[in-house]
Amino acid sequence: MQGLIKVTMNIHSIECKWQSEMAFAAQVNGHSIMLDAEEEFGGHNKGPRPKPLVLVALAGCTAMDVIAILSKMKLNVKSFTVKVDGELAEEHPKTYQKIHITYQFEGDLPYEKVEHAVKLSQEKYCGVSAMLRKAAELTYSIEISN
Amino acid sequence: MQGLIKVTMNIHSIECKWQSEMAFAAQVNGHSIMLDAEEEFGGHNKGPRPKPLVLVALAGCTAMDVIAILSKMKLNVKSFTVKVDGELAEEHPKTYQKIHITYQFEGDLPYEKVEHAVKLSQEKYCGVSAMLRKAAELTYSIEISN
Repeated sequence: MQGLIKVTMNIHSIECKWQSEMAFAAQVNGHSIMLDAEEEFGGHNKGPRPKPLVLVALAGCTAMDVIAILSKMKLNVKSFTVKVDGELAEEHPKTYQKIHITYQFEGDLPYEKVEHAVKLSQEKYCGVSAMLRKAAELTYSIEISN
Repeated sequence: MQGLIKVTMNIHSIECKWQSEMAFAAQVNGHSIMLDAEEEFGGHNKGPRPKPLVLVALAGCTAMDVIAILSKMKLNVKSFTVKVDGELAEEHPKTYQKIHITYQFEGDLPYEKVEHAVKLSQEKYCGVSAMLRKAAELTYSIEISN
């Protein structure tokens, strides 16, 4: 039983069901997300395009690492936003060639501690960063304002 | 101006703003997606975890390719679902080591034509597949029922 439970816990499963035209409804962790193409490609923008969702996954994955680490450091974060820009290849398959993550903080936060948290995520914990780094040039910057 | 427009079109930008605890709100293509951790990691499951969103992006990206190609072939697809299973590494960073895509169709569909559409997506068009193939072993299977 122990072995079976372990295997089950290590597999993530999602599904994506066609609705009509270019619209799809995805099921993930019990939540539904609509995906759609833009008008130019036969869609109606009923939801986001799939490819930038990769950037959302990246932002969310590293952001959760960082906020958890800063919280353990007892730092008082007033606001925290992660922005991601992905530069697309010109030819098919249109992969992201360069990805830049901007970590933006508000609060009385020592730069070294914030940088340490970001580095721990980027170099150790963030699985999405580790995967995308194999496909794209991944860079980041940190901005702190009071 | 032409150069500027070209550069702008080739960059995808998203952002992900901290809400509270482990909850983040992402903005992508004008849509908002809530992300959250599970209770075990200090979240409340207000939205999906970030990592399986990578699998949603993969499913959506290849599914849109395939439905667009089948539509051009004038095939009558009754239903179409893409399921994705990702097997996680045991150690940090917990990347997907193996990813399997199952394409499930209902309809009177010739296997060869469906397979051709899937291959075009997997080998030529799907940018998310191309990126993840650099990080994980990516396999797929096709199921057709009437």
